[in-house]
Amino acid sequence: MARIDGRKAHELRPVRIKRGFTKAPAGSVLIETGKTQVLCTATIEESVPPWRESSGLGWVTAEYDMLPSSTGRRRKRDRGGKIDGRTQEIQRLIGRSLRAVVDMAKLGPRCIWLDCDVIQADGGTRTAAITGAYVALADAVNVLRKQKLITANPLTDSVAAVSVGLVDDVVLLDLCYEEDVRAQVDFNVVLTGKGRFVEVQGAAEAGTFDEAQMLSIIKTARTGLNRLRRMQKEAF
Amino acid sequence: MARIDGRKAHELRPVRIKRGFTKAPAGSVLIETGKTQVLCTATIEESVPPWRESSGLGWVTAEYDMLPSSTGRRRKRDRGGKIDGRTQEIQRLIGRSLRAVVDMAKLGPRCIWLDCDVIQADGGTRTAAITGAYVALADAVNVLRKQKLITANPLTDSVAAVSVGLVDDVVLLDLCYEEDVRAQVDFNVVLTGKGRFVEVQGAAEAGTFDEAQMLSIIKTARTGLNRLRRMQKEAF
Amino acid sequence: MARIDGRKAHELRPVRIKRGFTKAPAGSVLIETGKTQVLCTATIEESVPPWRESSGLGWVTAEYDMLPSSTGRRRKRDRGGKIDGRTQEIQRLIGRSLRAVVDMAKLGPRCIWLDCDVIQADGGTRTAAITGAYVALADAVNVLRKQKLITANPLTDSVAAVSVGLVDDVVLLDLCYEEDVRAQVDFNVVLTGKGRFVEVQGAAEAGTFDEAQMLSIIKTARTGLNRLRRMQKEAF
Amino acid sequence: MARIDGRKAHELRPVRIKRGFTKAPAGSVLIETGKTQVLCTATIEESVPPWRESSGLGWVTAEYDMLPSSTGRRRKRDRGGKIDGRTQEIQRLIGRSLRAVVDMAKLGPRCIWLDCDVIQADGGTRTAAITGAYVALADAVNVLRKQKLITANPLTDSVAAVSVGLVDDVVLLDLCYEEDVRAQVDFNVVLTGKGRFVEVQGAAEAGTFDEAQMLSIIKTARTGLNRLRRMQKEAF
Amino acid sequence: MARIDGRKAHELRPVRIKRGFTKAPAGSVLIETGKTQVLCTATIEESVPPWRESSGLGWVTAEYDMLPSSTGRRRKRDRGGKIDGRTQEIQRLIGRSLRAVVDMAKLGPRCIWLDCDVIQADGGTRTAAITGAYVALADAVNVLRKQKLITANPLTDSVAAVSVGLVDDVVLLDLCYEEDVRAQVDFNVVLTGKGRFVEVQGAAEAGTFDEAQMLSIIKTARTGLNRLRRMQKEAF
Amino acid sequence: MARIDGRKAHELRPVRIKRGFTKAPAGSVLIETGKTQVLCTATIEESVPPWRESSGLGWVTAEYDMLPSSTGRRRKRDRGGKIDGRTQEIQRLIGRSLRAVVDMAKLGPRCIWLDCDVIQADGGTRTAAITGAYVALADAVNVLRKQKLITANPLTDSVAAVSVGLVDDVVLLDLCYEEDVRAQVDFNVVLTGKGRFVEVQGAAEAGTFDEAQMLSIIKTARTGLNRLRRMQKEAF
Repeated sequence: MARIDGRKAHELRPVRIKRGFTKAPAGSVLIETGKTQVLCTATIEESVPPWRESSGLGWVTAEYDMLPSSTGRRRKRDRGGKIDGRTQEIQRLIGRSLRAVVDMAKLGPRCIWLDCDVIQADGGTRTAAITGAYVALADAVNVLRKQKLITANPLTDSVAAVSVGLVDDVVLLDLCYEEDVRAQVDFNVVLTGKGRFVEVQGAAEAGTFDEAQMLSIIKTARTGLNRLRRMQKEAF
Repeated sequence: MARIDGRKAHELRPVRIKRGFTKAPAGSVLIETGKTQVLCTATIEESVPPWRESSGLGWVTAEYDMLPSSTGRRRKRDRGGKIDGRTQEIQRLIGRSLRAVVDMAKLGPRCIWLDCDVIQADGGTRTAAITGAYVALADAVNVLRKQKLITANPLTDSVAAVSVGLVDDVVLLDLCYEEDVRAQVDFNVVLTGKGRFVEVQGAAEAGTFDEAQMLSIIKTARTGLNRLRRMQKEAF
Repeated sequence: MARIDGRKAHELRPVRIKRGFTKAPAGSVLIETGKTQVLCTATIEESVPPWRESSGLGWVTAEYDMLPSSTGRRRKRDRGGKIDGRTQEIQRLIGRSLRAVVDMAKLGPRCIWLDCDVIQADGGTRTAAITGAYVALADAVNVLRKQKLITANPLTDSVAAVSVGLVDDVVLLDLCYEEDVRAQVDFNVVLTGKGRFVEVQGAAEAGTFDEAQMLSIIKTARTGLNRLRRMQKEAF
Repeated sequence: MARIDGRKAHELRPVRIKRGFTKAPAGSVLIETGKTQVLCTATIEESVPPWRESSGLGWVTAEYDMLPSSTGRRRKRDRGGKIDGRTQEIQRLIGRSLRAVVDMAKLGPRCIWLDCDVIQADGGTRTAAITGAYVALADAVNVLRKQKLITANPLTDSVAAVSVGLVDDVVLLDLCYEEDVRAQVDFNVVLTGKGRFVEVQGAAEAGTFDEAQMLSIIKTARTGLNRLRRMQKEAF
Repeated sequence: MARIDGRKAHELRPVRIKRGFTKAPAGSVLIETGKTQVLCTATIEESVPPWRESSGLGWVTAEYDMLPSSTGRRRKRDRGGKIDGRTQEIQRLIGRSLRAVVDMAKLGPRCIWLDCDVIQADGGTRTAAITGAYVALADAVNVLRKQKLITANPLTDSVAAVSVGLVDDVVLLDLCYEEDVRAQVDFNVVLTGKGRFVEVQGAAEAGTFDEAQMLSIIKTARTGLNRLRRMQKEAF
Repeated sequence: MARIDGRKAHELRPVRIKRGFTKAPAGSVLIETGKTQVLCTATIEESVPPWRESSGLGWVTAEYDMLPSSTGRRRKRDRGGKIDGRTQEIQRLIGRSLRAVVDMAKLGPRCIWLDCDVIQADGGTRTAAITGAYVALADAVNVLRKQKLITANPLTDSVAAVSVGLVDDVVLLDLCYEEDVRAQVDFNVVLTGKGRFVEVQGAAEAGTFDEAQMLSIIKTARTGLNRLRRMQKEAF
């Protein structure tokens, strides 16, 4: 069964990871997966949130947004004082995913901000953001090490994410927007480089799913994530 | 290994489902799971959101909130114009879970609001809200049928939810607050009465998890959900 | 003249005061007056607002809200960043009323939050809130005394409130919602256990009123308040 | 007993009512009571709020604000999206008071906005606003009559307001700021020209009050309001 | 060519500068230019914004607003939490213009707030605000000197502003509202008493302009500003 | 006198204009001037703002924002419901500048949104945004023409902008961030391709300026703008 862009069911879209896209932040990565483009930056702040003070531990937090022009129909800016629910959910997911591979004691009393701004959206922006943000985070950690601000490596593992969906009862890897809209079931899987899960989020968008389908989806996600892991390595 | 409240690892807390708790809404259910108490109400509105107009289809949406006095330390009211991210995530989850068992064409051009207000919180408020909201929704549907506003039953199945966690490497069903704080991994599983998944949300709060652990968690959730399904039935 | 619910003109609706409704707050009272139900809780905070610091004095403050499902027609949540005027007026009234019977020096440098959340509304929610909040406050004060955090009793008196209206030129005690809507004049009277006034708020909703009517209203309020005072005592 | 500004207990401060202070609105009145100055304007809008449409009835509504420089210590502008509770309470009181003397059917399907902006504050701004807003409203009504937009007079009576307080157990009429701060009890009384009550709002700021004190306060208010009524007449 | 109000092209509207209009602020000036009336007050605050602390330098900042009744059609109050763009632009311009003539070291670690509230608007409110705010600022500086809080004069020059426009290809000084609406080009020029520019803001509202037109506009502005400078002097 | 980046006083930074940077919007231009990078997109909306309806005329509006990572020190997102004053000023300037070269009747009843998002900031972002937005606008107009939605060209001219400042009494063209911070006087000049002014905004950031300096600044701006005009042409 051919997919809308000619891919096979378990095939990722072409991925490009461009480091050093901008100069100001410690890490700056433009990740492209097909037409989806996300700018992931890592900025170091030499302080921690108030509730974290005097613990000696560091913090990693993420913000996610989409440029108004990133989607086919112009998206209104989030200026009304209410961040919409989807945006909040995504930035919380990105933050949790990255924190899973950071040793906060080794990071020390500083905060790394991961800003994931979607330049162009064609499905899979949250998973691309996680995959790209890891590379930006690793670059920021290297800056800290070069500046001798930290000695031990606070990264305990790498992390990447991918979406898998069930479309017309077929398991498809790395959904583009048109597939995402038609998917019965949509999973986002976050996996470390060592093959352990950080998050598994599966939702039936229409109807429901059974355990066999879930296992098949997870297996497919793992295949894609192994490939994404290699691309992260090649980017360095 | 004894749990903090003396339960066994795969044991639910005592559950009480009280229908007709208040009179104004079409459905009004107070669900208690241990010390957690959530008031779930279903209000019928004879119109649909603007984007849904002229489709002939109905809509089901949920709002979730916690009373300031529901937690040990008083919780500030959400009055600043920003709903916090956790609240948004939860109310979106409740809405999606209930919509999974509703045939919107049979519901017809009306909206059912599910308000889940936490009176007392001791872990598992979002899953209790889903389990209770289903009962309130069913009561509201009965009101529509008695009033002859609908003829066919729009409910395609029942739905319930439960949390399962990994605490000190042991799989525990239905976490109370103190267990939730200590959990390495936290899953919320939403299952229909026919045993099909609606949502599976698993997150490593500290560290990561492997596939065997995930499968064990899912199996435990299923056990608990079968029991919750029976209690929903007994409530009617 | 028979009232809508069969009561006599100077008769209160049935009142129930249930202490210890929830466990987290120091005081937790569910007060029911007819179909009106308000959960009044008292939470102790071991600090005072900034403007009160270094005075050694305590503070008592109240917040009031209605659950969306508390009214016949679903009430939108106050999430837009603007608290509506009626809500503000009511919570200010509750705070002032309770502060009138507290010796802030004896309370010491701590704050008691009184949260009054309407579970079901059928008129008289603000007066029920005051009557119930007094009981919750007294329970919280007892907690402070048992914990030896205070020695002298900061409560100088008790306090309760009731509404009285002029409907079709008849003075009616304790208006239910339907009577409230039709009232020409609506008074809320707040009285201490010793029979002294804290607040008298009378407004002509349609037309105006004269001094004889005002005096008759005040007298009727006093009758009802004596009975409410007894019920508060019986609740302990 | 001499008051801070040399007045007798039952004496009003000097009152000036200047009509036509600005040209844009249909009515524009600067009212001064002692150092308190409030600009009260009445603007006609040829439409009614949505909930009032198709009733054929008119509407009168009020907004109240204080210039930042109106008080001794600069007052922050209400720009944060939250109107403070006191401001809301006052503008609701002004609106209700003026609506009490308007026949909405005779006003017809239009809205009169009463804007009361405090230029200088020295106590009694809300009562001055009501007294001044009545004059502005009457001017706006005259504009409507001259333009033949209405034929019958929608004003059924005049209205004015005054504050009375209990300071050191003495009943004082028309409190200035320093008296207001020290008052045990503070009443705002709104009376029509025919001597009927619209609102009676009495609050014990410190301690409580008894019925004899209340009656003495009401009597004193009436004396002051008779004089204010004459000044309103003289202004025309 | 006669203007709408009979003035010549290079003629200012009648200007009145009334000092001491209200008593609370250190400086309080009502400036009238034709029908435009702006209340400009200067309030001294014995602290500086956080970012200015420990510099020893002072600060001058401005806020601008229009009363709802100041315009022909009632203007909604800025209460929604968003200050509109025009308001922000104007208050930033006023602040910059006044800071240009203040030596912040001589002012010392305090802030002067300039509140410019438009009582009546007929074009040129921002320039009237600057001209009036200078007088209020000078009065506030005199208060500081009389109180011996400062010794050296922090004012390095005076400042005033005027608008000039191109209407039907004719350069007109000090546009009233109707001229402003019809202007092809609109300049606001801010000049010190010594004849040096602080701001030149010219915008083509319809079409564009050339260099000769710009020079003619600037020259006309200078003529008007010399006259405004004399009126500021006469006000003292 | 050498500038910080080795340029001569009247020399622009290297400019790159990349069309078609993203695919979703009708026009998408990445403009780089030195290290400053702004993504300017033009999105067509087949409707106009409410106040513009039934006029038959079109509308062009702009929004400006900076990515959090665009500056050396991370910039907080504008999510609090208040757009800061600088952002508002800039997006209003961009909108006015582009509207100056559009014939709204020929554009017809549709709106073109110009989104200018700063990817990297090193001074001159607002002028780069205008220069780039013109190219995006022209591309969007071509889309309309190819789709035969319009027949006549609504663009009456081209437009570009540049900053000029006075630094240490020397007139410098196209200030980078470090020069901008040190500038005594800062001008933004917006000029059409035919050499006519749209906007001239000059402000003394420290001190003041005289007419000779202003004329020299304007002349320098014109030189730079001629070169920018050529680069816009080459981009097509």
